Formats: sequence, C-alpha cells, structure tokens
Amino acid sequence: MPHRHNLATIEDYRPLIGSAVVERIREKADMLRGLHVAHINSTYYGGGVAEILSPLTLLMNSVGVMTGWRVIQGAPDFFSITKKMHNALQGGAINLSPRKCRIYEDIVYENAVRNHLHDHDFVIVHDPQPLPMVVNYKKNCPWVWRCHLDLTNPHRELWEYLLQFIELHDAVVLSLEEYRQRLRTPQLFFKPCIDPFSIKNRDMTAENIRERLDHYHIPTDLPIVTQISRFDRWKDPAGVIEAFRLAREEVPCTLVLLGNVATDDPEGGEVYTSLLDQREERIIIISRQDTALVNALQRHAAVVIQKSLREGFGLTVTEAMWKGAAVIGGNAGGISYQIEDGVNGFLVSTIEEAADRIVRLIRDKDLRSSLGKAAREQVRENFLMTRLLEDYLDLFASFETIFRLRDGEEA
Amino acid sequence: MPHRHNLATIEDYRPLIGSAVVERIREKADMLRGLHVAHINSTYYGGGVAEILSPLTLLMNSVGVMTGWRVIQGAPDFFSITKKMHNALQGGAINLSPRKCRIYEDIVYENAVRNHLHDHDFVIVHDPQPLPMVVNYKKNCPWVWRCHLDLTNPHRELWEYLLQFIELHDAVVLSLEEYRQRLRTPQLFFKPCIDPFSIKNRDMTAENIRERLDHYHIPTDLPIVTQISRFDRWKDPAGVIEAFRLAREEVPCTLVLLGNVATDDPEGGEVYTSLLDQREERIIIISRQDTALVNALQRHAAVVIQKSLREGFGLTVTEAMWKGAAVIGGNAGGISYQIEDGVNGFLVSTIEEAADRIVRLIRDKDLRSSLGKAAREQVRENFLMTRLLEDYLDLFASFETIFRLRDGEEA
Repeated sequence: MPHRHNLATIEDYRPLIGSAVVERIREKADMLRGLHVAHINSTYYGGGVAEILSPLTLLMNSVGVMTGWRVIQGAPDFFSITKKMHNALQGGAINLSPRKCRIYEDIVYENAVRNHLHDHDFVIVHDPQPLPMVVNYKKNCPWVWRCHLDLTNPHRELWEYLLQFIELHDAVVLSLEEYRQRLRTPQLFFKPCIDPFSIKNRDMTAENIRERLDHYHIPTDLPIVTQISRFDRWKDPAGVIEAFRLAREEVPCTLVLLGNVATDDPEGGEVYTSLLDQREERIIIISRQDTALVNALQRHAAVVIQKSLREGFGLTVTEAMWKGAAVIGGNAGGISYQIEDGVNGFLVSTIEEAADRIVRLIRDKDLRSSLGKAAREQVRENFLMTRLLEDYLDLFASFETIFRLRDGEEA
Repeated sequence: MPHRHNLATIEDYRPLIGSAVVERIREKADMLRGLHVAHINSTYYGGGVAEILSPLTLLMNSVGVMTGWRVIQGAPDFFSITKKMHNALQGGAINLSPRKCRIYEDIVYENAVRNHLHDHDFVIVHDPQPLPMVVNYKKNCPWVWRCHLDLTNPHRELWEYLLQFIELHDAVVLSLEEYRQRLRTPQLFFKPCIDPFSIKNRDMTAENIRERLDHYHIPTDLPIVTQISRFDRWKDPAGVIEAFRLAREEVPCTLVLLGNVATDDPEGGEVYTSLLDQREERIIIISRQDTALVNALQRHAAVVIQKSLREGFGLTVTEAMWKGAAVIGGNAGGISYQIEDGVNGFLVSTIEEAADRIVRLIRDKDLRSSLGKAAREQVRENFLMTRLLEDYLDLFASFETIFRLRDGEEA
C-alpha cells in the first residue's frame, strides 16, 4: 500500500498569503479546471527556469490545471549554440552561421517529432532553446513564448532571425517592462518569484542554522554581513569588501561572501581568485553550492547585501527579504522593483553609501527588525509562487474568453 | 521558410535490410497507425537506454506510431538511491531503508503528477527509476516494464519490494531469456540492437578514419588489434595485453586499448591505472569518450577483441561485427548469442586461445574478410534498430488483439 505523498499544494500557502487570496486563486482555477497545459524548456536541472518550473507545475496541478513539463533533448553542439544565443540575447556577440541555424532547427524538429501536443489547450515555451518548436505543429491552441532573459539589448541579427519563430506565438511573456520589444505579438510581464517551501527558502530551526554555519567554520560571535551571489564583476564583490572595511572601522562585524562559479562562465574563476588575497579572519570567502547554507546565512546575518552594478531581477534579494533580513541592494535592474529605499531595505549607489547603511543597520536592531518585517511583507504580496500561478491563470482565462467569443461567432 | 530535416526513417534502412523486411514492418505499422505510445526513462544522456530510445522513438514516429519520450526528474538523493537499486538488481548489495523507499516513491509520484498519460495506448517504463509510476494512474491502457539490466542474480529483498510495482504492469520485457524471473506477469525478450546511422556506427571515409587515428597518434604501419571497452576487470584488459604479448612473438602488430571510466564506477580508475605501466610504443592505452574514434578503430583494426569474462550483451561486439570486423569474443553472456565460433568470428575462453586467434587472423586476410562478411550479415539480420522496432510492433499488436477481443465481448 503506497504511503501518502506530501507535495506542497495551494493549501500550504494559506497561512502565508491568507484565505482570501487562496480562494480568489481557487475560483480562477476552477473556471479552467481540466485545462491541459505543457511547459517546454531545455533542462530539469540547474538554472532559475527549472527552479521555477519544478514547484510551479506541481502547484498548477494541485489547483486542477493538468500541467505537464517537457524537456527537449539535444546533442552537445546544440547546447553550445543555444548557450551562445542565450548570451547574445543578453548583449553578447554571436557568429550566426547557417550551420548553427541548421543544427538549432534540426534538433528542435527532432523534439517536435517526439512530443505530441495535439490535445493541449496551452503550450508555453521557455527561452530560446525550444523556441522553434511551434513551426513544426499544426497549431490548435495558443502558444506562449516565455523568455526569462534580460532583453535590454539583444543582438540585432539574432533577434531578427528568431522573430520568425517568436511571432508564430500568440503571446510573449517577459520578466520586466523594460525588456519590451517591437513585436506584432502581444507582450505580458511576469516578474520572477520564489518557492517558500524549497530547501533554500523554507523555515529552519535555530539548531539547523547553527549546524550549517558551524559546518563551514563561520564565526557567529560578531554580527554577520553577507553577500550571496555568483562571483561576477557586475555583482561587485570587491566593492562589498571595500564597504565592509569602511564599516568595521565603526562597528565590529564579520563578512561572508558566498557564491559559486557558473560552469559556463570563464570569467567567474578569475573574479573568485582575484578576491582570495583579501581573505582574513573576518573576511570569509566561500565558493560552494549549498542551498541550506544560503538559507542559514540569510536567516542569521545582521545585514544581507547585494551590491550589484547590473542585475536582471535579483532573486537573492527576494530570498533574503522573504526571511525578514535587512537588505542593502544596489540601485540596479530588478532590485529597485523589490526594495523601497528606507521602507523595506536600502538602495545604494556607492561604496560609501553601502558602508554607511551597514553601520546604521548593525547599530540599530529595531531598524533591522522593522525593515525586515516590511521586506517579508513585500515578498509575501508580490513575489511568491502563488503570484506567478495567478499570472498564468489570468493569461489562460484571457485566451479562453477570446476563444469562447470566436467559437460563438463561428457558430 | 524552414529547411527540410534529414532524420533517418525506415526508408534509410531499405538498402540495409532489404525491401521485403521494410514492407513487412510497414504493414505491421500500418495496422497500428495513430497508436499513441510513451516511453519513460530517467535520462536523455549517457547510457545504453538513451542511446536506443533516441533513434527508436524517431523511427517509430516515422512509421506512423505516435511515440513520445518522457524523462523523469529527480533530486540527487533520488538518483543516488536508484543507482544503488540498479547495482543491486545486477547482484550488488543495498541497504533498503524505509527512508530510501519513501524518497523513491515520492519523487516518482511528483513525476506522475506532471505526466498526463490518459490518452495513451501504451506506456513503456524503462528500468527501475520510473518503475512505480504505474501505481499513480487509473490505468486505461497496457503498461510494459522494460528492464535492460542483467537480472541473473537480483538482490532478493529489493526484488520483493519492487514486485508490487512490477506486477502492476501487463508485460515485462527483458534482454535475454536467462534473465527470466518468477512472475505472474508475462515476460518477453528483446535483445539489444544498434543504430547504424549514429556517429559510432555510420559509414566513414578512409580519410576520416585516418584523421581520427592520426589525431590520437595511433600508428597504422602494423596491423592493429584493439579492445574497446570500459576499464573494468570483467572485460579483462590485462588478459588482452597478455594475449597480445604472446601473439606478437609470431606476428608484428600494435595493440590499442580504448575505454573510458564510468563516473559511477570507483573501481574503473584503479583498473585503468593498473594498466598504465604496461604502456609502450606498441601498447597504446587511451581513456577517452570519442565515438568517432571508436568507429574509426573498429573499421581500421585487423582484429577487434572483446575478451570479457562476464558480459551483459556486449554491444561493442555488435558494433564491430556491423563494420565487418574480424572479432574475437570471450565466451560469456550475450557474446555467444552474436558470435558463432569459426563462422562469423571466434569465441575464446583462455589467453592462449585469444593469442592463437589473433595470430591466425593477422596472417590470413581471406579469413578476416570471410568472417567479417558473415559478422555484418549476422547484425544486419538480428541486431539493427529495425528489429527492435518490429519487436515493439509485435508486442503492440498482440495487445491490440486482446483488447479487440475484449471490446467485442463487451459489445
């Protein structure tokens, strides 16, 4: 007799977002009960998209929307091409040869052969990898392209090439208004969000927090200032160290830089190495992938900083705010959507400002506590997985209305 | 305007297996046209199952059977448990704790939530990882468990635990008769096969062969004897070196051992290292994953040896035979299903026998050529992907008949 499984459902959100919101979402979902939806992306593992799709697809099923998750298969040369495309859409360079386009379209075609989507009501294609899927189908439902990239400055030639696929979709969903493109296809904007039940975000006991910090020999005798972020120049870890050095002339504290080096980022290793001779007893630099440690640090730290000079959205800010941390964010990209300066955190533009806010926060427990409370409130209202679920339900409903009208006209 | 895609279809097999066989397969497929089938396994990459499912699913679609390929998603602890199960089913040990069973069933349940299979006519579940899927569905079509493992001596307690899932299937497919288990479920046997159009097996020009060998500094002045196989004691690479040393007292030749170390095999590294001090000008040992090099070596070598002491099926033997190589195989496991001694290769049980056959083959070009021709014929008739396709079509048809009878009775 198989045991009961304890997947998070919409009911687990009731204590977090309140009954009124849960009921509103349930009502919307009930209108769409039995809808059959497929999400398509390129990997189950690693990266923010998989991190969102894993809980989102379970949550959608828990409210009665039959939601599948398909992953495309490809050879290494396919993924090396799509990685270049990924970077070029975020402003990098690419040599878009016919050979590359051919491999890209061939592999996507193979995947279309293996994925039968004729009985679906919505197909949602994530990011550039599976984008050309749509050309291989007799479309009988709306297709949505959901692009998670920073489209501030996409590579022009690549964008022109991809347009032939993009505009076959019925809607394009981007993460922020400022990524809006000139398109014939309607554009919507779904901000990123976090899963409060993941290992990175779920509640931890004081004992478990202590255990994680001890495991990495992180001293807890002084207040901790931490930045948790890939080792990348745009995250300005060197600036964080400088701000910390200024701040500790006023207040004793410990700095922890925790990050990892993305395997596809050759610069990351250099940035990490360049920081290492700044290491000392009170400047701890750790390169590790340990989501429970992230959780513990964000919960224990007196100050969480994310001093980015450029930032897509900045989910590490969201994660820290959710834990009621006092957060100092660089005034860049999506961080300013999350932090209202002085209300639920601080926004800074210079090292001196950062140092000043560190000192103020470490000296003032009440300030930390009030900013932290407002921070958690901000995430609770705007950046939990249920908000994204509702975004999708609203999207589906808007198309359902269109189709009902259209069917009515034809009848 | 998207270009034409050149996927291998059944028509590409016509020159290989003949029109009569192609027509027979086409007729069987036509009877099943529009059937909707899903294969479920645990990875797109690495391992023999993915290597078979990739071409098989495309081929099935090319004859009109709508065939999907779903891959389950799991966290690292899930895969660490299923890897232990994999090994235990092949005779290893496992500590089957309730915690392991719980994680195993929970993760499979999550995948069931995300995979809607209500409109399928057949579901084929591969290997132990997704085995419990079936308990989570209201079954409305036949489910088949296809186990690719060597079940000579499965771990008893694990087998008893898995039985509750296995026997919910309508058929079990194993690779060889000798893996047969005591089961209430009917058992069938589909031997492994190869894809003649893969990079490992497709035709190569003399120029491309030379280029690959040169790339690895493999000398081609003397006849080459090669074993291409994981570095594993059961493949007896040390015995191959000994046989080679005996043989070259009679005829000058070069030995190439090509293999790789499976990342999940701690012993592999030791075996590889233990061989290294035997390296010399004419004993070349390469640890690399380069399928084009495998292809080139099998085509160029005077003698391909696979001196296994234990062997599941031995697809490297099949691959070499397909290329018309003169193959010496250890008289073990599936190798004896492929090689008929003295007819399409040699079967050997000792180092001395292996040395003797190496000498005979290197001295006798006509013998090499006649054995090689018969070897290719053996694979052409029995071990190409079309044979496996036909196995599946026959399986589907047998159930279709049952269901038609049953529906008839009910009507």
